[in-house]
Amino acid sequence: MTKSPETVVIRRITPSLDNARFAIKRPVGGTLQVEADIFKDGHDEVAALLKWRRVGESAWNETPMRPLLNDRWAGEFLVADAGAWEFTVEAWGDVFFSWQHELEKKFAAGLRELQSEILEGAGFIETAAKQAGKGGDCEALKKFAKEMRAADPDKAHALAHDPNLCALMVIHADRSISTTAEPFHPVWVDRERATFASWYEFFPRSAEGKPDSGSTFRDCLGRIDDAKAMGFDVIYFPPIHPIGESNRKGRNNSTTCQPGEPGVPYAIGNRRQGVNGGGHKDVAPELGTLEDFDWLVAQIQKRGLEIALDFAINCSPDHPYVHEHPEWFFKRPDGSIKYAENPPKKYEDVYPLNFHNADWRALWDELRDVILFWCGHGVKIFRVDNPHTKPVAFWEWVIAEVKAKYPDTVFLSEAFTKPKMMQELAKAGYTQSYTYFTWRNTKWELVEYLTELNTPPMRDFFRPNFFANTPDILPEFLQHGGRPAFLIRALLAAMTSPVYGIYSGFELCENTPVLGKEEYLDSEKYQFKGRDWNAPGNIKDYITKLNAIRAGNRALRGFDNLRLHTAENDQILCFSKSTPALDNIVFIAATLDPRSNQSAFVHVPLEEFGIGADEEYAMEDLLTGEVFHWRGSRNFVALDPQNRPAHVFRVRRPIGREEGVDLFA
Amino acid sequence: MTKSPETVVIRRITPSLDNARFAIKRPVGGTLQVEADIFKDGHDEVAALLKWRRVGESAWNETPMRPLLNDRWAGEFLVADAGAWEFTVEAWGDVFFSWQHELEKKFAAGLRELQSEILEGAGFIETAAKQAGKGGDCEALKKFAKEMRAADPDKAHALAHDPNLCALMVIHADRSISTTAEPFHPVWVDRERATFASWYEFFPRSAEGKPDSGSTFRDCLGRIDDAKAMGFDVIYFPPIHPIGESNRKGRNNSTTCQPGEPGVPYAIGNRRQGVNGGGHKDVAPELGTLEDFDWLVAQIQKRGLEIALDFAINCSPDHPYVHEHPEWFFKRPDGSIKYAENPPKKYEDVYPLNFHNADWRALWDELRDVILFWCGHGVKIFRVDNPHTKPVAFWEWVIAEVKAKYPDTVFLSEAFTKPKMMQELAKAGYTQSYTYFTWRNTKWELVEYLTELNTPPMRDFFRPNFFANTPDILPEFLQHGGRPAFLIRALLAAMTSPVYGIYSGFELCENTPVLGKEEYLDSEKYQFKGRDWNAPGNIKDYITKLNAIRAGNRALRGFDNLRLHTAENDQILCFSKSTPALDNIVFIAATLDPRSNQSAFVHVPLEEFGIGADEEYAMEDLLTGEVFHWRGSRNFVALDPQNRPAHVFRVRRPIGREEGVDLFA
Repeated sequence: MTKSPETVVIRRITPSLDNARFAIKRPVGGTLQVEADIFKDGHDEVAALLKWRRVGESAWNETPMRPLLNDRWAGEFLVADAGAWEFTVEAWGDVFFSWQHELEKKFAAGLRELQSEILEGAGFIETAAKQAGKGGDCEALKKFAKEMRAADPDKAHALAHDPNLCALMVIHADRSISTTAEPFHPVWVDRERATFASWYEFFPRSAEGKPDSGSTFRDCLGRIDDAKAMGFDVIYFPPIHPIGESNRKGRNNSTTCQPGEPGVPYAIGNRRQGVNGGGHKDVAPELGTLEDFDWLVAQIQKRGLEIALDFAINCSPDHPYVHEHPEWFFKRPDGSIKYAENPPKKYEDVYPLNFHNADWRALWDELRDVILFWCGHGVKIFRVDNPHTKPVAFWEWVIAEVKAKYPDTVFLSEAFTKPKMMQELAKAGYTQSYTYFTWRNTKWELVEYLTELNTPPMRDFFRPNFFANTPDILPEFLQHGGRPAFLIRALLAAMTSPVYGIYSGFELCENTPVLGKEEYLDSEKYQFKGRDWNAPGNIKDYITKLNAIRAGNRALRGFDNLRLHTAENDQILCFSKSTPALDNIVFIAATLDPRSNQSAFVHVPLEEFGIGADEEYAMEDLLTGEVFHWRGSRNFVALDPQNRPAHVFRVRRPIGREEGVDLFA
Repeated sequence: MTKSPETVVIRRITPSLDNARFAIKRPVGGTLQVEADIFKDGHDEVAALLKWRRVGESAWNETPMRPLLNDRWAGEFLVADAGAWEFTVEAWGDVFFSWQHELEKKFAAGLRELQSEILEGAGFIETAAKQAGKGGDCEALKKFAKEMRAADPDKAHALAHDPNLCALMVIHADRSISTTAEPFHPVWVDRERATFASWYEFFPRSAEGKPDSGSTFRDCLGRIDDAKAMGFDVIYFPPIHPIGESNRKGRNNSTTCQPGEPGVPYAIGNRRQGVNGGGHKDVAPELGTLEDFDWLVAQIQKRGLEIALDFAINCSPDHPYVHEHPEWFFKRPDGSIKYAENPPKKYEDVYPLNFHNADWRALWDELRDVILFWCGHGVKIFRVDNPHTKPVAFWEWVIAEVKAKYPDTVFLSEAFTKPKMMQELAKAGYTQSYTYFTWRNTKWELVEYLTELNTPPMRDFFRPNFFANTPDILPEFLQHGGRPAFLIRALLAAMTSPVYGIYSGFELCENTPVLGKEEYLDSEKYQFKGRDWNAPGNIKDYITKLNAIRAGNRALRGFDNLRLHTAENDQILCFSKSTPALDNIVFIAATLDPRSNQSAFVHVPLEEFGIGADEEYAMEDLLTGEVFHWRGSRNFVALDPQNRPAHVFRVRRPIGREEGVDLFA
């Protein structure tokens, strides 16, 4: 042991992921609450600071921590800007306040032979004065020291508790023997659209809904304006790259493809197309040129929306990598390249990459460069296809590389797999994650899952993106529940999670499956698809309302403020979100039953909402405009899946009475 | 990133203390159960090994881990020898077993075009053969590879599951791309007396119980033989060093000391005495010489017992350090050395040391050398006085230093302070810890506390030493409960904790307190004390029985095997301990009420004990020799605090019937 030994013990800092191995996540403008076990040998008074800074900066911001119970301490700071931050805790035995405490005890015991104590205290103040350097604090401390040196016991006792002196002694504490916890704890702070966004997914080739031919980038504005009108702010495209021709799949995933069929956008690569080799850095010529894409991105941005691209590490047999880097792929004994399999299924149109091939470094660099390429074209949101079939180490590396250059990049993990892998990908750097939401339909399932997502440690790193459907998932609930099922699922997604999305067709209540599967019949993954985007029975107005409610109520921008409440009916889910200042409270009672009317007494958490037990309060239904006047916690709601799938109440607290009229916030 | 990237994710290894920052503890011969989250991208079969070795060795021992549920894996190993060990987990995607699994799925789906798969499998076997080097395994693998290469699909399918091949493919798995978890997890394995021992504390100067003068080391054999006869195996002496004369305390902690009063052994140091300066490396001349001490240690060892010394870092004003190293102490403004205080109390006979003084390194070295000095005189157990008033960092350092030279040293922490500090000292290296046991009397208190001690993480590092009393603590329960209180507390200490102790006088049921305090009146800390060690009413026979029961029942050597059971009475505590093989089961029902008879139905955990619901089993009371025949879980016990404070049953399971007589294990 060569360095000066540790004085204070600092342990169990929270929030922490795997002993600070990974960053916790926070939205910009959020408050980070930190706690730690802090204690010291002997009887000294302990002082502790919470310290934080941007990664790369040398100076710390500091704020005092306060003791809770049983050697647990707490402090908090505001994460004001997006990017990489870190925090730690520094603590020390404070000589001045220990002295003050002992003096107090002696004084209280009636001791007045305190000359030695008084001189000791003066010494501590002089040390602080020296440390304060020059200026007002130093002069003030010198004055206090002088007064202390000359003080009688009564005067000294009073001086020791002088608030001005105490404040100065906090600022200029003697931290020469202090402990700073290591490792420092990383925090990743995301911009707002990473934490609050409504996604709308469509295939650009389907933009116009033509049954026999595809649309181009230049044809997409109608669909985009429609999405904007519905209130969506992220437009997500499945892969836009050249599609392979070898073993191209036909409609409904047929292994035989008819001439003119467009192929699956996930079979990426056609080295006979595109200016950048026909791979991941190219656009499919049937969609247009890279210039067309740039034009579309600009149009999207002009509308205040943002584009998200798919990053799917799949290669068709025609991908340029197959030709240029056969060593990046798996080989069969006969030297040919292995296609993807999930026995007995075969995916002859896709070659998986070998992330641990001898030349892995070049492969990893190339894949990073693909992402950077699209970042360079204005894309800052990537939905990543099947990340759980590539090494987690790759994602941790590539996300860090991209964020070093483009810190505002957002990565959405499409890992429908076992819980620990899904969580690990989120730890490794994914901004958002697809979830099991699609398959959580009953009240018990929803309560369990929402609680799990909203409990540490998951709450600190796993940010859900609740998609109500995807091109791969037409959930049974939607297949069998008719239009009400779409109303219910859209509401649950949009109101529980600040980030949610739908795949186009949802607003038309499309629900014809491949028999016995959760897949779409005649999926546009494999074919052109005719659609009337304003077909009768669509729920676009309803979705527009949901997004407007999201936009107009700040409480809905959070996830960790979600609270579940009692509804005395297993078919009704009741929950709320509110801002810390309670100036925006949304209280929701939603039916889970797409078939029958349901009613229940629901319990409003009056105390949490700052409403008196006997006070009247107003419940404004943001879906219908109705206002109900309630009193007390237990109130009755009646829901109808066709016409009133939920009450989305803004809770208006009583704020007084004017000219004989009750006023509500 | 330069090194080959991680393939498998390994997280949440247990047991682990603060991310492997501290060693977990295990008794020698114990089994260490390890679990970890282990998973990998893609669909490969994962294989995992638990690896362990002595710290300092390069080769690992290895044993396969098995998957539990949800990506959790488990394995275990035997800690065969005392000392410092470490373990970790290695895992990889296993190409052969992934291949086997996929082949199986294809075969099951009726596919028979498997030529490429067969050659691939042969290739994996050839790689294993190469890795096996020379010898039988290599030859066998080569033969399997040759067979595989020539096999038709049916033959290949059979070969892939050949148990001999599979066994070889486990041993010679391709681990070229594997992940090994870091940091490695340290384990400290203690010798048996560190984990199973009965302590008897007495002041050597009181050995003969003379009221007006002290005994010497040469007078101690009687007391030691008596302790041995009672079944104790650790003899613990409070400090044996020269006692200061300045400000020496008189009887009952008086600040005035009469001539001839012996002083407090904790006021250590008298530089006019002793051959090594009169400090911590000397014995008080009134006890004898260092040679006398060596003789006594040899006598103790000859009897199969072991000595424990007190390590109290207290210095009297007469300690040589005060003269030689005044810079090691705290100073008052007038330059004099500060005595210890706990305002308004003053301890003028003790000077605390400043562990962070400018010359701290020399002080720390000196204190280490004190311990090493006594190790050199055959002392391997140290009871450390008030460790929580010295830096934890010091203890971590000094214990490691001592154990590096004397790995079998045992340190007992006498930290009666807040929970987190007590725990941190145990993490920092203390073998055993004093506990709150002394103040846990009601059933609720005992259940809570025993459960806390026996639950991870505390179970993994905090080893309780249940002292029923100490020279500083005469608990209220003993003050007011009479002889039955002593019977109850001895039983609870001896039966629940494998390490326990009493301070002499307990066996005589001494219980006269300083009025209103939990301190002994006329404490021998301050004076000579007359005693008849065989005074009427003593409970030596009872204690002898308890220690004999401990010695005769292996189940009582464990702590983590303690199980609490239902007794339908809040005044009766019911618990058991058993060996893993169930060849020794002790089931105890103890009264907690020193005043009245109590009875209850108690619940025997038949299934845990391997006894059928309808079977008769024998309950042998080890305190009385009685045998009761019980059937079913719920049975009646009646306890009498004077004569039957507990049933200590050996549970004898039915093992058959011979010549018309039921037999029990």
